Amino acid sequence: MLDRLKSVLKARFGSAPDLSEAPKGVDVLAEMANRRVVRRYSDKPLDPALLDTLCAVALSAPSKSDLQQADIVIVTDKAQREKLQALIPENPWAAAGPALLVFCGNNRRHRLLFDWRGRPFVNDHLDPFFNAAVDAGIVLATFIAAADRVGLGTCPISQIRNQAERVSEVLGLPQHVFPVAGLGVGWPSFEGVMSPRLGLDVSIHRDRYDETGLE
Amino acid sequence: MLDRLKSVLKARFGSAPDLSEAPKGVDVLAEMANRRVVRRYSDKPLDPALLDTLCAVALSAPSKSDLQQADIVIVTDKAQREKLQALIPENPWAAAGPALLVFCGNNRRHRLLFDWRGRPFVNDHLDPFFNAAVDAGIVLATFIAAADRVGLGTCPISQIRNQAERVSEVLGLPQHVFPVAGLGVGWPSFEGVMSPRLGLDVSIHRDRYDETGLE
Repeated sequence: MLDRLKSVLKARFGSAPDLSEAPKGVDVLAEMANRRVVRRYSDKPLDPALLDTLCAVALSAPSKSDLQQADIVIVTDKAQREKLQALIPENPWAAAGPALLVFCGNNRRHRLLFDWRGRPFVNDHLDPFFNAAVDAGIVLATFIAAADRVGLGTCPISQIRNQAERVSEVLGLPQHVFPVAGLGVGWPSFEGVMSPRLGLDVSIHRDRYDETGLE
Repeated sequence: MLDRLKSVLKARFGSAPDLSEAPKGVDVLAEMANRRVVRRYSDKPLDPALLDTLCAVALSAPSKSDLQQADIVIVTDKAQREKLQALIPENPWAAAGPALLVFCGNNRRHRLLFDWRGRPFVNDHLDPFFNAAVDAGIVLATFIAAADRVGLGTCPISQIRNQAERVSEVLGLPQHVFPVAGLGVGWPSFEGVMSPRLGLDVSIHRDRYDETGLE
């Protein structure tokens, strides 16, 4: 399995770290390294309890100051799906599959806590947006890692960021709750495509940022 | 293992979805649901090739438009560790452990591509920051999921966001590369603490945002 992990990493990055011994969990690492975007799904139904379970696993991820500034909207209603689809025409595959998830940053709950206690929200600048956006990215990535383990296919759809206001209207998102990414989910009908990546020495730095040789 | 998964979710959220059959990968889901923050590490050395491998697995995660706007700086140099530590005094545990990682958003490479082709960067507003920050969150979360599988302990340190300029100085980050989170990494010397979460009906919504009963 160590060989498998290394060969997958080589395929993606052009090289692989020189690991001499298989670590615990090497099989999962090899699967994670082999992560594919899946845009085509079979007709097999998706158990809503499985989807909820994956959302719960995703929400178990670390959250900035434990403030839990990320939400998931599970969209299965046909009319809602169609309204969202009309906003992301470049992603026709988002209409396929049994569910479309929308991962949202949520700085509203944090603010409401101040409201309910009759105190002003003192931190009203870029940070709340930054923190909630990163939290949503963390929950999205953890959902993907969990969905991959059960064999589900997923396809992130960042185009919804370009339509944040209209997506918010469709989903009824209040102020300070904003869409970060959509995610198509379903049982894969093909194995997906591996996205190649820049060399590891471009994105991994030692002690200091170094872009020697980038160009 | 399905029972284990459900009991872990109950401990964290107060309830668990009513899944009737164990999905593939249920053991990994149970571990992911049981994710702990680990702030104390043993003296066991951390193989640099293992750390690199986990970074590579993390960078295999999806990236907005495949632009790969996230980097990892692996900080092991003692002097660099001390400089960073001085900036995050509220996180004394960041000084422990064999490595401190800094996950960065990187919108610089994307801009350089335009430069090198003699074209103006047309998208100079909030989006590049948003996209790179979310990409960094995705890589951070995927690193954590991978590190957990091999049995490493991790502790995210968001305090570095408050010191972005000084952290950038220490790490030599150029313009448009910015720190999103630190991460302490090491072999755990205790099992860590589970962070409780809001009820699942607070953070998971069906077809539309709903905060009935939130207060």
